Amino acid sequence: MSAVRRIGVLTGGGDAPGLNAVIRAVVRSCKVAHGVSVTGILDGFIGLVEMKVRELSLADVSGLLVRGGTVLGTSNRGNPFRYAFRRPDGVEELVDASATAKKNFDKLGLDGLIVIGGDGSLSIAERFWRELGIPVVGVPKTIDNDLFGTEYTFGFATALDSASWALDRLHSTAESHHRVMLLEVMGREAGWIALHAGLAGGGDVVLIPEIPFRFEALMAKFRARERSGRPFSVVVVAEGAAPEGGTQVFAGEDAVTGWKRLGGISTQIAREIESRGGYEVRATVLGHIQRGGTPVPTDRILATRFGVEAARLAVTGQFGNMVALRSDEIVAVPIEDTIGRLKRVDPNCQLVRMARSLGIVFGDEDLEAVDRSEG
Amino acid sequence: MSAVRRIGVLTGGGDAPGLNAVIRAVVRSCKVAHGVSVTGILDGFIGLVEMKVRELSLADVSGLLVRGGTVLGTSNRGNPFRYAFRRPDGVEELVDASATAKKNFDKLGLDGLIVIGGDGSLSIAERFWRELGIPVVGVPKTIDNDLFGTEYTFGFATALDSASWALDRLHSTAESHHRVMLLEVMGREAGWIALHAGLAGGGDVVLIPEIPFRFEALMAKFRARERSGRPFSVVVVAEGAAPEGGTQVFAGEDAVTGWKRLGGISTQIAREIESRGGYEVRATVLGHIQRGGTPVPTDRILATRFGVEAARLAVTGQFGNMVALRSDEIVAVPIEDTIGRLKRVDPNCQLVRMARSLGIVFGDEDLEAVDRSEG
Amino acid sequence: MSAVRRIGVLTGGGDAPGLNAVIRAVVRSCKVAHGVSVTGILDGFIGLVEMKVRELSLADVSGLLVRGGTVLGTSNRGNPFRYAFRRPDGVEELVDASATAKKNFDKLGLDGLIVIGGDGSLSIAERFWRELGIPVVGVPKTIDNDLFGTEYTFGFATALDSASWALDRLHSTAESHHRVMLLEVMGREAGWIALHAGLAGGGDVVLIPEIPFRFEALMAKFRARERSGRPFSVVVVAEGAAPEGGTQVFAGEDAVTGWKRLGGISTQIAREIESRGGYEVRATVLGHIQRGGTPVPTDRILATRFGVEAARLAVTGQFGNMVALRSDEIVAVPIEDTIGRLKRVDPNCQLVRMARSLGIVFGDEDLEAVDRSEG
Amino acid sequence: MSAVRRIGVLTGGGDAPGLNAVIRAVVRSCKVAHGVSVTGILDGFIGLVEMKVRELSLADVSGLLVRGGTVLGTSNRGNPFRYAFRRPDGVEELVDASATAKKNFDKLGLDGLIVIGGDGSLSIAERFWRELGIPVVGVPKTIDNDLFGTEYTFGFATALDSASWALDRLHSTAESHHRVMLLEVMGREAGWIALHAGLAGGGDVVLIPEIPFRFEALMAKFRARERSGRPFSVVVVAEGAAPEGGTQVFAGEDAVTGWKRLGGISTQIAREIESRGGYEVRATVLGHIQRGGTPVPTDRILATRFGVEAARLAVTGQFGNMVALRSDEIVAVPIEDTIGRLKRVDPNCQLVRMARSLGIVFGDEDLEAVDRSEG
Repeated sequence: MSAVRRIGVLTGGGDAPGLNAVIRAVVRSCKVAHGVSVTGILDGFIGLVEMKVRELSLADVSGLLVRGGTVLGTSNRGNPFRYAFRRPDGVEELVDASATAKKNFDKLGLDGLIVIGGDGSLSIAERFWRELGIPVVGVPKTIDNDLFGTEYTFGFATALDSASWALDRLHSTAESHHRVMLLEVMGREAGWIALHAGLAGGGDVVLIPEIPFRFEALMAKFRARERSGRPFSVVVVAEGAAPEGGTQVFAGEDAVTGWKRLGGISTQIAREIESRGGYEVRATVLGHIQRGGTPVPTDRILATRFGVEAARLAVTGQFGNMVALRSDEIVAVPIEDTIGRLKRVDPNCQLVRMARSLGIVFGDEDLEAVDRSEG
Repeated sequence: MSAVRRIGVLTGGGDAPGLNAVIRAVVRSCKVAHGVSVTGILDGFIGLVEMKVRELSLADVSGLLVRGGTVLGTSNRGNPFRYAFRRPDGVEELVDASATAKKNFDKLGLDGLIVIGGDGSLSIAERFWRELGIPVVGVPKTIDNDLFGTEYTFGFATALDSASWALDRLHSTAESHHRVMLLEVMGREAGWIALHAGLAGGGDVVLIPEIPFRFEALMAKFRARERSGRPFSVVVVAEGAAPEGGTQVFAGEDAVTGWKRLGGISTQIAREIESRGGYEVRATVLGHIQRGGTPVPTDRILATRFGVEAARLAVTGQFGNMVALRSDEIVAVPIEDTIGRLKRVDPNCQLVRMARSLGIVFGDEDLEAVDRSEG
Repeated sequence: MSAVRRIGVLTGGGDAPGLNAVIRAVVRSCKVAHGVSVTGILDGFIGLVEMKVRELSLADVSGLLVRGGTVLGTSNRGNPFRYAFRRPDGVEELVDASATAKKNFDKLGLDGLIVIGGDGSLSIAERFWRELGIPVVGVPKTIDNDLFGTEYTFGFATALDSASWALDRLHSTAESHHRVMLLEVMGREAGWIALHAGLAGGGDVVLIPEIPFRFEALMAKFRARERSGRPFSVVVVAEGAAPEGGTQVFAGEDAVTGWKRLGGISTQIAREIESRGGYEVRATVLGHIQRGGTPVPTDRILATRFGVEAARLAVTGQFGNMVALRSDEIVAVPIEDTIGRLKRVDPNCQLVRMARSLGIVFGDEDLEAVDRSEG
Repeated sequence: MSAVRRIGVLTGGGDAPGLNAVIRAVVRSCKVAHGVSVTGILDGFIGLVEMKVRELSLADVSGLLVRGGTVLGTSNRGNPFRYAFRRPDGVEELVDASATAKKNFDKLGLDGLIVIGGDGSLSIAERFWRELGIPVVGVPKTIDNDLFGTEYTFGFATALDSASWALDRLHSTAESHHRVMLLEVMGREAGWIALHAGLAGGGDVVLIPEIPFRFEALMAKFRARERSGRPFSVVVVAEGAAPEGGTQVFAGEDAVTGWKRLGGISTQIAREIESRGGYEVRATVLGHIQRGGTPVPTDRILATRFGVEAARLAVTGQFGNMVALRSDEIVAVPIEDTIGRLKRVDPNCQLVRMARSLGIVFGDEDLEAVDRSEG
């Protein structure tokens, strides 16, 4: 059906629910619709350097739709341009192994390479295409949903589901014990999960990297809720959230170390709230739980659509592109237009304004507005 | 803040996960953002005729985000233009009670009415606005996702979740027993749930109203799977699916009765497949389970956004409009542009083409294509 | 460690969540604790006759804990004493193939055979042991929980979870629409799932095979609920439930056929209730959904414990026994003491009495008691 | 029906899934079966001292079966014998307010008091009965399942479900990233949740308070898994777990403070493993998520049975008793026989031995045994 005979596929960077569904869709549509073979490259780009591969048959991808993780494995030290080579004397050295990758690509008889990964992996893919002429197609992957160029990525809905599940549980404990409960969710640069989870889980306060907060606003919200007969609050915290002029609160060399030692921003916020008096606070860090598990149906569908379209682009020779979701259609956009950029929450976007209309406090409000937020 | 002092809200037609989340969002944003009171009208439009109402406070809507159903109740005999009036002699008579509805609307001191409902309820809302001058704002509701003018409606993702949950369960039984398992899902006019569930749940065959099917194609698919070592199949059937020239298969007066008596299309399809030999078939009708339960997070968010925007439209006097989702934004569209039309699956749309690329059979393929669909 | 070198394992009869967890536990404990090899026999007893087997390694059972179904496959035509032999002329003949089974058992070098199955499979296992001298250990399997000799079996808690999940969904629809919702669950001979689901899911009426019901009691319950302001009811029906003097209600040759044609008892009960007037009724048959899916944690644990103990019994030569749960311990009981008997719900047991105390109606109450059941 | 006219009910101590189900069962069975009224006492024992109560009707408990938390509220400063009295000058003083509790009990016209709580609350209940003659019935509550006298308590199965849910998610991340993932679950004195979750979630290592562990055994397990091609491990840690001679590892004043500051044992274990080299480790503390949420069906049933039996004991004057589960029956045991004792995991019990048979390492094994645990 096409000059393309064999396609390679790899997964790079962190784990995300739906990776396996993309792999399955690539393999199934290559075989069924295009009569093309698929080589799975193991442990990310590293597998291309070290020639760790396996043939992927229809049987290999049977049952993958519901499985979390990636059967291809992935790796965080996955950059062939800075490959950690271990010399005979045991010393590790960073070398450019991209030529080896290119050579192996040819040796494997590949006509195209589908790279499923985040901004880092897609940047490497783009260099492969531009510098080495390796024909690549990208599939965007980020649980945080902060990748530029696509409305949503797979994994986000599943992470939201986990965060929402946790919030439902914390709510009943908060209510029974008259407590402030904090839930820390993923989002170092962008607060998408926190914002969506706050809306889905009935959060009272949402703290995101894009909106620096003041503790005064938080305390005002807790008091406003108490006055209206709800002496408990639920706070959703993105891991990248920070108070206004953040360095003042967590000042000093010690505090920087403390950040990592203390397991995240939520523990520090909890301590600060308690120190201001009047509230028992508990913090829960959802952590890696958000990355795992069976993808929710919408993520399975999005991942599948990405996989089918990536295969089609590869088979029809439309390289250098990344698949993306726009207005409920899957489209192709040049990888170079999307990498190195971040999709962050606009503090004035409709979703944030709606959240404020519901009384959700982001911590940058003047105190009068907070006082009115409980009716 | 606005001349509007009091808004009414009602839910019409069938149950859908997220109704309570809309009500909560209407009440919270009316109170918090607009300083406006809300009157809940019970049991759909009927409550406006019979003056069954209750004040809705913030406390009344606390905890509603996660609850299925509607705390306002709903009714299927809810058309005030054809109100079932029971005369003193016990005989029921259909009368036009719209003037009573209008009188009660004024008596309640309402400045606007938010109608959450499907095509039928929105059509009544539109007549209220056009014929009676009752200022309405619509919120579209349909689990089937077949309402025109909005990309998605709340309830659909939850129904998809239930259908996908059921498919995951049927898969393991199909595989262990070498059977053909049918799952009948909602969708009388449009196959959205079946199509999405088929993609999310790894269905082998998807039967939808928009694509009449031939049993020969189904049997060919089952045989193709058997040949490739998978002697079991999972079929997703929309309740409105029908074979090509449907009347021939379910012909006669008897068959029409039979349809209802036999509990749906899937039972008949199951019988026909068994009669063609070689396969043990089991049909499950998911039924009302799809309408109930806690909404999934994405439905909670969509319902909340609809509710906030409906309240804003009502408070700012933008009547005659319905809220809608377009490109991930909530917008207002004239109700009259959306009613009486149906959003159906285009047999040539990207989603259907992708499904076919994966090997999913819709039953209208030529047999050679089916033979190739298992690689 | 023991004279035993190799154990066979097979799964017989219907699918149940936890089968794979038993297989995994047998293989892991055989390898890790006893240094014994395991041969998997495919498609139930049939695999022993037709020599369809495969070696089971630790890698083969990795990930099985969470997977529904059985990787060994199962078969309903699985009795070697009445094996369906297909003659060269194509005619099927029932023959005694037990000698072949025995010969193959020896040929495979097996020192014991673990049979995971229901009453039918365990009866065959017992004949293997008594008549052919094949050393067997049984693992009881029945979703209905009606196997004699063990307090609970794996699969039951998962089926209960599914039934309870469905009831939660039907509840919100019942409440919003003022309807009577019926849920038909498994249980041909025993009402365990219906009874437990009724308690867990807040059912108003529970109909089980052990307690013949009268429609008058059902209607009285619906009216009592209506009087107390709850004009909706949820009814849980075991598939084996029947009215007092059942044949009168579903009389005649036609009705017997009708039973099967009409998809179960719940459809008939629904029709009867509607014909008695005043209530809109909807029936949902949960069906095979109860058999599939990831086992709930308690089923995974019970299945695992059964598997470990079955392996230990086999390795230490304690044949002819079945593992069983008693007072939270796994014990061994002679298979012959348990087969051919049924564990049914005692209408006077604590659980039924408690259900009645809560106002749950079983349909055999006098009407005054029913009237009082809503306080 | 009985001389008893009115029963009080309160919930004490920490939150647990199923508290509301007990309350519902008490109210429903009191009303339906016994014609007895129920007074709800708010915020634990404190409500009896401060006379915070409310009448509980059938409508009040409708829908409670599925709701986490307790509608009665609870309190951690709930001991009437050491009541924190705030003097007019603002100073808090601990006073014996038990006489006030007794006076209020009489003033409310109560004939009995049902106390739902853990060891602390039940000890107070027992003093009420013995010292003050307040007729009490106890309902045991502990998520950790460490209460003496009952095989299981409600809440445990739901906590196990949450822990197992989290483990399923961590598994896929562990596998994709070749990591050691730690999950810290509840269990300060007893390792029941960790042990069960380890079995249900396929843990490789389980660390519980009853079995002090050595890091050497852990490292040996990780290496054994790596050798057998599984370069990732999942460790379940009870919050009360400790290494052999624990003080040596976390020595010094600083470390003691550190314990609390650092968010639990799992963080410290993670650091120690990483410092021993070769493994990337991630720790997740499940925390309060385990206390909240909708109870799983088996917990709903157990809680309901406890509630019905507690009501029956109160109505029939069998005071001084606690309800308990034994061999699947609900029985009454004297409260005094159960309090002040702890039900811990016996390191030689069947469950632990079975876990070891599967290759699960508890950390006290000799290294050879660990080496063999991966086959």
